[in-house]
Formats: sequence, C-alpha cells, structure tokens
Amino acid sequence: MATDSTAYPFTLLDIVNQCDSFPYAPDPKLEQLTFLTFVVDNIPVGRIHNTVVPHITAFNQQSSPIFHITDTTVSFMPWLSDYESRSDAIAQMLKHWRNDVKSFPCLSGWRDELYGVYTHITDPATTKGGAALAIERSACGLFGVHAYGVHMNGFVRTGPKPSDVQLWIARRSMTKPTYPGMLDNMVAGGMGFGHSPQYTIIKESMEEATIPADIAVNAIPVGTISYTKLSKDCTQTQPETQIVYDLELSKDITPVPCDTEVEDFRLWTMEQVLTAIRQGEFKPNCACVCLHFMIRHAVLTPENEPDYLEIVHRLHRRIEYPGPKKWPTFKE
Amino acid sequence: MATDSTAYPFTLLDIVNQCDSFPYAPDPKLEQLTFLTFVVDNIPVGRIHNTVVPHITAFNQQSSPIFHITDTTVSFMPWLSDYESRSDAIAQMLKHWRNDVKSFPCLSGWRDELYGVYTHITDPATTKGGAALAIERSACGLFGVHAYGVHMNGFVRTGPKPSDVQLWIARRSMTKPTYPGMLDNMVAGGMGFGHSPQYTIIKESMEEATIPADIAVNAIPVGTISYTKLSKDCTQTQPETQIVYDLELSKDITPVPCDTEVEDFRLWTMEQVLTAIRQGEFKPNCACVCLHFMIRHAVLTPENEPDYLEIVHRLHRRIEYPGPKKWPTFKE
Repeated sequence: MATDSTAYPFTLLDIVNQCDSFPYAPDPKLEQLTFLTFVVDNIPVGRIHNTVVPHITAFNQQSSPIFHITDTTVSFMPWLSDYESRSDAIAQMLKHWRNDVKSFPCLSGWRDELYGVYTHITDPATTKGGAALAIERSACGLFGVHAYGVHMNGFVRTGPKPSDVQLWIARRSMTKPTYPGMLDNMVAGGMGFGHSPQYTIIKESMEEATIPADIAVNAIPVGTISYTKLSKDCTQTQPETQIVYDLELSKDITPVPCDTEVEDFRLWTMEQVLTAIRQGEFKPNCACVCLHFMIRHAVLTPENEPDYLEIVHRLHRRIEYPGPKKWPTFKE
Repeated sequence: MATDSTAYPFTLLDIVNQCDSFPYAPDPKLEQLTFLTFVVDNIPVGRIHNTVVPHITAFNQQSSPIFHITDTTVSFMPWLSDYESRSDAIAQMLKHWRNDVKSFPCLSGWRDELYGVYTHITDPATTKGGAALAIERSACGLFGVHAYGVHMNGFVRTGPKPSDVQLWIARRSMTKPTYPGMLDNMVAGGMGFGHSPQYTIIKESMEEATIPADIAVNAIPVGTISYTKLSKDCTQTQPETQIVYDLELSKDITPVPCDTEVEDFRLWTMEQVLTAIRQGEFKPNCACVCLHFMIRHAVLTPENEPDYLEIVHRLHRRIEYPGPKKWPTFKE
C-alpha cells in the first residue's frame, strides 16, 4: 500500500515536515530565526518575533508598562503576577493592535475565544483553573504559546483485521479563512479555555458532523500528535498538541455538516486517504492525524513505509512548554 | 485508576524519566557531559565519551590508524569508506579491548550479535543491506549509536470497551545480566542486523514465550517508543527505538517460558500493571511499552493522568540519527 509513492508529488514524511516545520537543533536555519523567549513565572512559555517587540515597546510607552524586554526575553512586569492582571494587560494590548491590520494580519481572524497558557505554578490564588494567563486564540501565534485541540477519526470496520477500516473524511468549507476546501478529519477543534478534551470532542461532534452526544461519548482518546509550525515568513511559531480520538461508527451512521465549516463528508478506504495525503489535498495536521491512525491500525508498518521510524518520532514532537496538569472545566 | 498515585514511590512520569534520561537542551546538565560526536559519511551517528578516546588513540598507534579524532568528533579514516572495512576495523579494536575489563565492563556481556548503523547513504557498493557498518551489540553504548528492538504486548480482552483488557507480564530470570527479576513485556528482543521487525517478533515469541509462529504472525505493529538513556556514570548513551506490537490472545492460550530468560508469566489487570510500574518493579523501557499500550487503549486519558501530554511526548523522543529506510533481511 505504501510502495508506489514515487507517482505522487509528496512523500508522507514531506507532509509531516509541512506540519512540523520549525527546525530542530543543530539545524543552521535556527540561527537565522530572530525570536525572543516569552517568559512567565521564570519559565519559557513561547516565542515572540523581534519585529513584534517595537509594537510592545510602543504600547508600553503609551499606557502603563506591561512587559520587561531584554535582548533575548519578553516577560511581564513584576506587578503583573496573576491570571487576571496578565490576561487583562494582553487583552488591552491586542485590542489596541487589532486595527493595525498591516502589522498583525492574524488578528483579522479574531475569534473571541481564549486559550490558556500554563507554567509550573498552579496556585489557585494567582492562576485560573491552573493557567497563568489566557490569550485570544487568533493571537497565539504572535506569542508562540502551546495551543491544544482535539481531532477525531470517525471510522467504520470492514473486516476482522485492525487494518480493515475506512475513514470518514471531511472537506473544509470554501469560506473558511484557513485551508479552504482542503480535506480534514471528521471532527476537529481548538480547546477553548475552561473546557476539557472530552467536552470539546462531544461539542464539536455535534457542531461539525451532527453526531449526537450519546454516540460521540464513545470516542476514545488514543494519544496525541504534537508539532511546532513555523509560518512561511518565519515570524510566527505555533507549538500544538492535538489529542486524538477514535470513534467507531456503524455503517448506518452518516456524518452530516451542521455548521458552515464543513462542505461534505466521504467514507474512504485507506488507499484513497493515502493517495489524497500524497497529493497534498489534506490540511497537513489533519493528514498527520490520519497517519497516526494508520500507524496504530497497522496500515502503515515498519516494512511498508520507508520513513516509518522518523514519521512516528516526528508526529510526537516534544513541546518544551508546560501543559495543564488538570484541564480546567469552569465553562462546562 | 490513575488518581491515587501519591501512595507510590514513583509517578508514571518518573519512570519515563528513568528510561529517557539523557537531558534535553537547554538543560545545563548537557554542558557537563563530555561526549564527542561519532561521525560517519559526514553525519552524526552516535556519541563517544572522552574517556574512551585515549583507548582509540592507543589502538590507532599500535595498528594501522582507524579513526580521525578532533576536539569534538570521531570519524573513520578516509580509506575506511565501506561497510566491510569499517565493521572489520571496529571488530578488531573491540576484540583487543575485550580483555580490558576495567575500562570496558560492558564488553564482558559480549553477545556475538551485530547491530546495523545507518547513514543517509544506502549505495549497495559501499553498504550492506543499507548499513554503513555494524557493531557488536554489547559495544553499542560505547559508540552511542541508535539501536532497535521489538516489544510485544500480549493481551486478553475482558469486555467490549478498548480499556477492558489484561496484559501478560513476564518476570525476567534472576540470572539475566541486566535487570534480573524485574517485570517485562510478554516478548521483547533486540533487532539483530539482517532481520526484519516481523521476523524478530515471531522468533522471539517462540524463544521467550513458546508462542508458535502461526499465532505470533497475528501480532500487529502499532507504533514505536523511542528514548535516549544516559548511563548512571554519564559515560554511555543508548538511543533506542522499540517497535511495539500488540498480540490479542484468547483466554485458552498461556505463554510458557522456553529459554532461560523468563522466570514466569502472569495475566494482570491494568490496575495491577499500573501499581507495579509505580512501585518500580518493571524494567523501565518495558514499563514505557505498557504505558504506550494503556494510552492507545484509553486506560490512561487526558483527564485521569496529570502528566498525560508529557508522557506521550516523551515516549517518542526524536532520535537524531538516521534509521534504515528498509530493514535488511539477508539472515532470514
């Protein structure tokens, strides 16, 4: 199944490279990148490009200063020492920046949804649900903080072997701001601050595929994929961990688009999915979730995929920034 | 299941740390380590401790020189440019060293079994089965080269949910040179040069658990765990990738020790396995294979294990040295 790969524009590893595009040490490309480390509670939590720093300095000067800036780091002023004050300060700055479309095109996709940022400190007196601060979702790339999401493989068994499976594949709506018209997993979504992974997967199952909660509750978490994306212009990084779920569906259940994010769904053989991945038709991180599924289901094996070992390593990049020890659920 | 962890001496992440003990950048411990990079075909393939270098220099002087040594690297002399000449030269040096028990205690466990070392060059004129050289198994830690093995979870289903499973657990013989008497996976073994993963898992299934080939052939590869171990005295590293297999067994099949490596087997609930892991009774990399199983089977979840994200990342360390694109099978 994985042998006639020369006929396609991309190898499977090429697609993983598109998703996990931030260089690994000692790659000399690292030296050309000009990020400062975003430090909270004395530990690194993200990367801020040096072209963003003048904008921070300008905001520091026109209001009360928020950030202490050195040659290599950006950190909060010492009096911004808890969740509320940090999150408020960043929100003020982002509101100010939001109209500066030329400098911050990403903010035109404003989501009004917060992502939690975690350190090793989880004291309820200074954190909210264990988070040191929260940042508007569309701004996370500006700070390079660790983001979290859920992706689900909806699958149907067609025989007794683990590899006898078909996958429900979504096509993203042409009106989506990112990756319009590309192929996607059956269900996927970012983990909004205050929601657990399980809550998020059940909510997204209804919103994106009209899968009711009594079926979605059978989705089981089977691990994660993790990667760090470097934007093409090398000014933003996005370290992400996607918690991966498998949901076995009987043949009489068909996902149906519910909101406007999904165009349609198709039930595909593993060969059809692999072909589309190799032709670059998938949003890259969704392709990686399919590869993770195919590795666990022995569709891809050490014997049939030449990059098997490297693909497995690279689907699980170690993100150097801490995650939550416990998912906050105050919004559920 | 994963909540009352305070009653035990180790967390699950502690055990992963024991297995994957080589520091990650920018850990300051890295600066205290004094390894040279082992370079073949102009790319790094391992780490050699600086205390080994005088022994290489001494051997260089008493025979024809094998290695070119700089402040930071060890590489073959240019005339040792193919599999045969490189492998022969190292074998000669190791035979000479083998009697020097004080300097090289690891060589007292001489296995007479070769491990392949791979670079990006796979030209059949200069490689054997795609390997740039092969090294005696017991000496791999001296060169810090990437080693490969197979580990198998033998499991029995006890209910309809993926987490309704029990695992066959082996106890290692008290006469084993490494980790005597500790708990182990049902089947595990190093991948000798010239054997494929599937051949190795079938061979080891018979040798270690008396599982016949017609049953072992149903073992399915479900991914890998990978880690780099730093020896307690900080003079050897062992980057390893273990290809993980699951073999579902019916209740009427019982593994039976065949060779002298295994003391006995027991069929344990997930709770029993977790307790033994937290009490430090498992060989650490075998504990990691059990954790990998429990993550894929939703025994451990993002909601019940506080270190879930970090454990998943850390079970899949990216090994910076290349592996084979195709497993050589000339000994099968």
